[in-house]
Amino acid sequence: MPDIRIVTERDLRDLVPLDFDAIAAVEDAFHALATKPVAMPPILRLDIPEHRGEVDVKTAYVPGLSGFAIKVSPGFFDNPKLGLPSVNGLMMLLSATTGLVEGLFLDNGYLTDVRTAAAGAVAAKHLSHQDARRVAIFGAGVQARLQLEALKLVRPIKTAVIWARDPAKASEAADMLSAELGLDVRAIADPAQAVAEADIVVTTTPAEAPILMADWLRPGQHLTAMGSDAEHKNEIDPQAIAMADLYVADSLVQTRRLGELHHAIAAGLVSAEAGFAELGQVVAGLHPGRPSPDAVTIADLTGTGVQDTAIATLAMSRTVANDRGARFTS
Amino acid sequence: MPDIRIVTERDLRDLVPLDFDAIAAVEDAFHALATKPVAMPPILRLDIPEHRGEVDVKTAYVPGLSGFAIKVSPGFFDNPKLGLPSVNGLMMLLSATTGLVEGLFLDNGYLTDVRTAAAGAVAAKHLSHQDARRVAIFGAGVQARLQLEALKLVRPIKTAVIWARDPAKASEAADMLSAELGLDVRAIADPAQAVAEADIVVTTTPAEAPILMADWLRPGQHLTAMGSDAEHKNEIDPQAIAMADLYVADSLVQTRRLGELHHAIAAGLVSAEAGFAELGQVVAGLHPGRPSPDAVTIADLTGTGVQDTAIATLAMSRTVANDRGARFTS
Repeated sequence: MPDIRIVTERDLRDLVPLDFDAIAAVEDAFHALATKPVAMPPILRLDIPEHRGEVDVKTAYVPGLSGFAIKVSPGFFDNPKLGLPSVNGLMMLLSATTGLVEGLFLDNGYLTDVRTAAAGAVAAKHLSHQDARRVAIFGAGVQARLQLEALKLVRPIKTAVIWARDPAKASEAADMLSAELGLDVRAIADPAQAVAEADIVVTTTPAEAPILMADWLRPGQHLTAMGSDAEHKNEIDPQAIAMADLYVADSLVQTRRLGELHHAIAAGLVSAEAGFAELGQVVAGLHPGRPSPDAVTIADLTGTGVQDTAIATLAMSRTVANDRGARFTS
Repeated sequence: MPDIRIVTERDLRDLVPLDFDAIAAVEDAFHALATKPVAMPPILRLDIPEHRGEVDVKTAYVPGLSGFAIKVSPGFFDNPKLGLPSVNGLMMLLSATTGLVEGLFLDNGYLTDVRTAAAGAVAAKHLSHQDARRVAIFGAGVQARLQLEALKLVRPIKTAVIWARDPAKASEAADMLSAELGLDVRAIADPAQAVAEADIVVTTTPAEAPILMADWLRPGQHLTAMGSDAEHKNEIDPQAIAMADLYVADSLVQTRRLGELHHAIAAGLVSAEAGFAELGQVVAGLHPGRPSPDAVTIADLTGTGVQDTAIATLAMSRTVANDRGARFTS
């Protein structure tokens, strides 16, 4: 049997930074989702309530890519009490021709972080103003940092404000991001004020009730909501979804069930059958995207298997090109 | 992060032979399935028709076991043209407490072979005559060999006959099994005759139309059908399912959809809502099992996630006890 490459998180952080190639890989994946017979089965989900644990398994086959990813994402929410991260897991890349496992990426969720941030960049690239300079980030975690870093790769960002439920964390994140990204990043106490000053708003929180109100949004803004990846999560006032000039889903099947759209439907503000554009359609030019300079646009990102396949394919090619990872024959 | 053990197929063949412990592990898993709140989500399935490929992902959490398996089983049916096996894949074992990956078993399907054969032994142990000595095996592949080996561990088997569509393969398998198992094993050309001489019949083929007729079965026989793990597979005359004195499913939800039962329902011989015993209920003593010495019993085995969790748990404990496998920290 051919070799399997096994790559650690440390190597993957070195091999697959959040860069233009990562964004291009994810952009191509969304393009494929809109234009090719992509196979993306429903997520496999296992719950272990006695340990507050859950596991998601995602996969997607993108015609034209030589491999496809299977991602195993456990979340065990009592782990911090044991000094362990809540989220970990791995990705594997299988040959689309033979099914043989080619790569095992022991990434503890790192590749998911990269592909998630890359999707934010793709959404902003296709929906926000070309000269967007001011960003508001809601949240102070890993995605808060990575989403800002990703935006900087696609727009001429100059300043950012960070709002978080815990002001100390917002300050800490702002200081770190100022130093790391060479931007003017400040913490801000008033979330409405954060939105008022922004060309692009990104929400990255695990909120279960809206933290961003519809009437805060102003003409010309683009909002990416990427915190909601489960039924009970909700960052955006459902009214904002109904009022937006353009609402774009990463996968409409998923956002109807898991995303901000789901809450707008549940609130009776949007019909469950209402059609909306998908990000891949905008990327592929099948949908015109931003309708006018004054439009409010919203991207609802729940995370898709094609992003995993895209980033795992990139990880594999970088691993091989740099001859990294341990080789196993089995 | 704690270590991950990565174990190759060669090591697994050494560490996890088909033995009493493997059978006991699978028997305990069926017991748990009948008596505990096991979580066994539907199989994740991805199809890649342009390469005649399919991938199944199975998982099950068994309360009381410290870990749970996730199994990735690709089947790519053009692989033999490339000199590669059709079926390969891997299993992983995750901690049920933290979700951390503890073991990666690069088994290329070997552990599935063992847990599948072990289920055949569990079925025979609980449903066949205690003094069953004569076996008929349908098929000449890996499971033909392993099912006979497994039966020998639970019943005083003396002789076996092998029937296969290709008589040359039946002869070859018979010669090999005679030598390996120290039994009188012969190939047989007439499948009806094969059944007539047997106390236990096991079908292990990928047949898509019945190869065993209902009127061949005789009082007191036990039949295990384990070839059907997909909607289009069918080894047993549906009439046999309807006529059996006792029909037992490994998982009734699955056999209604994938097993021999599915074809009996499709033929209108059995109601889709008809209740039947599950193997775990018989193991746990919640169902009496064989109703009389003259009864015909049938076990319909489609393969369950609890078997994977059971065998992966055994593989992990043997790996640790023997300090085998490569250790990765990631």
